[in-house]
Amino acid sequence: MARPPGGRTRLVTLTSDLGAAYAAQMKAVLVRTLPAGRMVDLAHDLPAHAIGEAAFVVRAMARGFPAGTVHLVVVDPGVGGHRVPIVIDCSDGSRLVGPDNGVLYPLAEELGLRGAYRIEPTRRGGPPPVGTTFDGRDVFAPAAARLARGTLPASLGPPVTPRRYSLPAPEPTRGGARGEVLHVDRFGNLVTNIPTAWVPVGSKELDVAVGSARSRRVRWVTSYEELGPGRLGALGSSFGLVEVAEARGRAADRWNARVGRRVRLRWAEGRSRG
Amino acid sequence: MARPPGGRTRLVTLTSDLGAAYAAQMKAVLVRTLPAGRMVDLAHDLPAHAIGEAAFVVRAMARGFPAGTVHLVVVDPGVGGHRVPIVIDCSDGSRLVGPDNGVLYPLAEELGLRGAYRIEPTRRGGPPPVGTTFDGRDVFAPAAARLARGTLPASLGPPVTPRRYSLPAPEPTRGGARGEVLHVDRFGNLVTNIPTAWVPVGSKELDVAVGSARSRRVRWVTSYEELGPGRLGALGSSFGLVEVAEARGRAADRWNARVGRRVRLRWAEGRSRG
Amino acid sequence: MARPPGGRTRLVTLTSDLGAAYAAQMKAVLVRTLPAGRMVDLAHDLPAHAIGEAAFVVRAMARGFPAGTVHLVVVDPGVGGHRVPIVIDCSDGSRLVGPDNGVLYPLAEELGLRGAYRIEPTRRGGPPPVGTTFDGRDVFAPAAARLARGTLPASLGPPVTPRRYSLPAPEPTRGGARGEVLHVDRFGNLVTNIPTAWVPVGSKELDVAVGSARSRRVRWVTSYEELGPGRLGALGSSFGLVEVAEARGRAADRWNARVGRRVRLRWAEGRSRG
Repeated sequence: MARPPGGRTRLVTLTSDLGAAYAAQMKAVLVRTLPAGRMVDLAHDLPAHAIGEAAFVVRAMARGFPAGTVHLVVVDPGVGGHRVPIVIDCSDGSRLVGPDNGVLYPLAEELGLRGAYRIEPTRRGGPPPVGTTFDGRDVFAPAAARLARGTLPASLGPPVTPRRYSLPAPEPTRGGARGEVLHVDRFGNLVTNIPTAWVPVGSKELDVAVGSARSRRVRWVTSYEELGPGRLGALGSSFGLVEVAEARGRAADRWNARVGRRVRLRWAEGRSRG
Repeated sequence: MARPPGGRTRLVTLTSDLGAAYAAQMKAVLVRTLPAGRMVDLAHDLPAHAIGEAAFVVRAMARGFPAGTVHLVVVDPGVGGHRVPIVIDCSDGSRLVGPDNGVLYPLAEELGLRGAYRIEPTRRGGPPPVGTTFDGRDVFAPAAARLARGTLPASLGPPVTPRRYSLPAPEPTRGGARGEVLHVDRFGNLVTNIPTAWVPVGSKELDVAVGSARSRRVRWVTSYEELGPGRLGALGSSFGLVEVAEARGRAADRWNARVGRRVRLRWAEGRSRG
Repeated sequence: MARPPGGRTRLVTLTSDLGAAYAAQMKAVLVRTLPAGRMVDLAHDLPAHAIGEAAFVVRAMARGFPAGTVHLVVVDPGVGGHRVPIVIDCSDGSRLVGPDNGVLYPLAEELGLRGAYRIEPTRRGGPPPVGTTFDGRDVFAPAAARLARGTLPASLGPPVTPRRYSLPAPEPTRGGARGEVLHVDRFGNLVTNIPTAWVPVGSKELDVAVGSARSRRVRWVTSYEELGPGRLGALGSSFGLVEVAEARGRAADRWNARVGRRVRLRWAEGRSRG
């Protein structure tokens, strides 16, 4: 599958923590190399330097794109240093391009990791780099453009074993679960790593503790509306993971919570305080 | 007009208060269903949960697009609850897709409301939903994709009467007008609901009161430059409505004003304090 | 070169300080006029009214696009006032459209300034303006659309001499250089106007003073990683200019620095305090 059917260039998505102005410089590279190519911005406002949260968000954003898409991901606090630029060849024909710091790994696992290759400076294409701080423009975008035109991942450089990175795993506990906050969304909702499927069917309430705060009993609902404005609750998020939310408010502010905070849940089946 | 001329897919615009990361998941659905379709991001940073302001901004953004465009709008604090997912069929062939909470109504009125249909879960297309909190991805985007490919609105579900929502109406008063702030723009300018056309021709000054603050006489100008940096004034905004602004500053901060604040104007024709 | 090869419309890029909602109204104009045209958002979150910083960022973003691109740039605090709407015809066939306030000038100089023309209201195309505050939608976008379809710059209005604007120039000093902060990026890095090439080869440290703060000796490195989290340093930025940075932190906050602040560097060859 060196080239998509009909000789068309592959779709390229762009994701970063760089902000729009730096992202624009990556787009210039892509447009110049792929005059008829299609590119789609996913997000350029990811939290700066937050590899773990980015790995989670990137997987959620990218998983729905067609097989064969080139996903360019630049969350790269180690730019210019020891981390290696890589392309990951996925089982569905998608290619992931970015730094080998783990940010691509959870998505690669989901799409199927078929191989990974270090991007050699001499084979990436594009003009010589200016400075050492923007591989997004100088290394990853030229490589993504070549891949979109059908270049095989293996022709960009030698095989490497990519750095494994696993999102933190939740643990079942007696009558509950323990996990952490993986992502705070735009609404201040706390997306945890605890699967919605672990919550017992028929639950109406949960005891929730975030960080070192005392546990609170909240309702387990299917809509923010059920809670009523300003009320805390828990829901099955769109990620398939338990979410702690405040209806029309910001749970993150209310609990002073951020990514990485411990979350403890206890099921409260059959019990109710109204 | 089941399909645009030449069998091309319709243009889809995307608007939301979801932020880029959730919006990306809607784009994945559209790209997968419409490999050659065109989509245009309008805004994904609308104020969270603010249906009224969104209705105003969406109308202003979407009104200029070609007849037949599919406008996907997700400002949906009631997701998962009682509000119904709908498509509105407009007289110009445009289709509006989103929650039936009023956010689509002012735009529909402007384009001509020809019919409205509830989107039935079984007919929306796309994979089964994950969770109950993201109809943008699970219901609206698949429906928009089908509409863009030519599916008729009526085939997505039964006819409904959409929830009416009217932007707050201004009132003429003796020698002035009463209204409210509809929108605070990126510059902190206060866009009111009082038509520019109500301001008497030849006006040079207005008395303006926002919220409970005392009335201030300000200049009625045609450019921020006329006011000079840091000076308050009023202008005919690009919405055709009176705008209260501070040149190179933020009127919203200066008046501690936000959407919904009462605005009183008094014409000051012929009078001047220099 | 009235029209790009094959009669295709030219690529249009959009840049502004307007935010997404106003930018969407410019896109409506472009889409309506250029149903098959391609447009690429560069940034709409540039600092409000900051012509100098925008001129720098625009040049960096736009320089990599193909010859012949139409760059629409709206950072326009003087809208409705005395400044003139212009199009600049560049030597590579690119056209720059925006206010004649200097924001286009550095890019024009880089691409080669072949001619400039005032955009006459009667020739810009598009519906009549609403208000006097949004030439981006009412003047510049219609003009950009016409240019993208092949209209010659000279046919939009009479020749003008555009307002010169030069980015502030750095000065060599005895054993160092004097300059200023041109841009604060999303990470809070301070991009100066002092060329990386001025730093003596083999430098390991620099004395850096920003604003009125005392000079500090910092390491001259090629990656943030070398500094270690929370440490200040200096690097050769991706703009080819010296950047002052804090690894995984915000140098702008640490130094309370913003655009326009004076920067003094002294080379510290051979000396080291460890």
